[in-house]
Amino acid sequence: MTNAIRILGLDPGLRRTGWGVVVCEGARLSHVGHGVIAPPVEAPLAERLLALYQGLREVIAAHAPHEAAVEETFVTANGASTLKLGHARAAAMIAPAAAGLPVAEYAAKVVKKAVVGTGRADKDQVAFMIARLLPTAGAASGDCADALAVAICHAHARRARRLERAA
Amino acid sequence: MTNAIRILGLDPGLRRTGWGVVVCEGARLSHVGHGVIAPPVEAPLAERLLALYQGLREVIAAHAPHEAAVEETFVTANGASTLKLGHARAAAMIAPAAAGLPVAEYAAKVVKKAVVGTGRADKDQVAFMIARLLPTAGAASGDCADALAVAICHAHARRARRLERAA
Repeated sequence: MTNAIRILGLDPGLRRTGWGVVVCEGARLSHVGHGVIAPPVEAPLAERLLALYQGLREVIAAHAPHEAAVEETFVTANGASTLKLGHARAAAMIAPAAAGLPVAEYAAKVVKKAVVGTGRADKDQVAFMIARLLPTAGAASGDCADALAVAICHAHARRARRLERAA
Repeated sequence: MTNAIRILGLDPGLRRTGWGVVVCEGARLSHVGHGVIAPPVEAPLAERLLALYQGLREVIAAHAPHEAAVEETFVTANGASTLKLGHARAAAMIAPAAAGLPVAEYAAKVVKKAVVGTGRADKDQVAFMIARLLPTAGAASGDCADALAVAICHAHARRARRLERAA
């Protein structure tokens, strides 16, 4: 019997939401797929959010992940962009929740630390490490690399919890 | 043939989301129903958002509105509460959008002006006017009165647009 778990990582944004699916079997990680959902920029807000939600439902139907993980949001001084991110993030969380998946949240620093080894890593370092950790992912750029990084972070965290429980 | 249009008004919040449905036939408005969806406070964020989304899907299935309207969000200096409101508001917008309803947005000032006559009205004044405008609504308190106010605001705005087009 295999204990393979498929994890969906999400990097939400109203213009571009990155997603990435990895499989973890014990300590082994492998790449399943990744992509970006970009709702029509000119559409009314409700339609953009629906496009994001529906796009993620399709990703979930296609890749059948068991669990999902999302970055915790950064609250910036710019209220308008915080609000936009909040909207996109909710759409990204409702989609897996509606499919019955548990949705974990990780701070950006925790994600970077899990993948690069430091919470201060920049986007290029994350993308570089994703290419190393998941060689079959090819060159997953920006949002996709971040989404895969969240999935890897969750894989590490759940493995750590299992080892703790076993100890 | 009747031109009755059912409008769903929404006052989103992560703890309490108010909803109200009115029917407008020309200049005549009547109350259909209202209520509050209060997701479990202790549940993880994704589950709270899902409860909100699913609760609104049930309201939409029960009352079959043709159009929906939501208050535009206030960006406050408190980033954390702006973010929470953004999350709740997205859940409240995806539900009617997924049911195929157009979702209009109105600034809080515009809603108050439509119902009370001034953009500076407080919650009590809004509730007072809702009781006047929709006598069969009974005493719709706080979030419900605000939701009914958004629905009435949309009824006025769409009627104004129709009259303009007819002129």
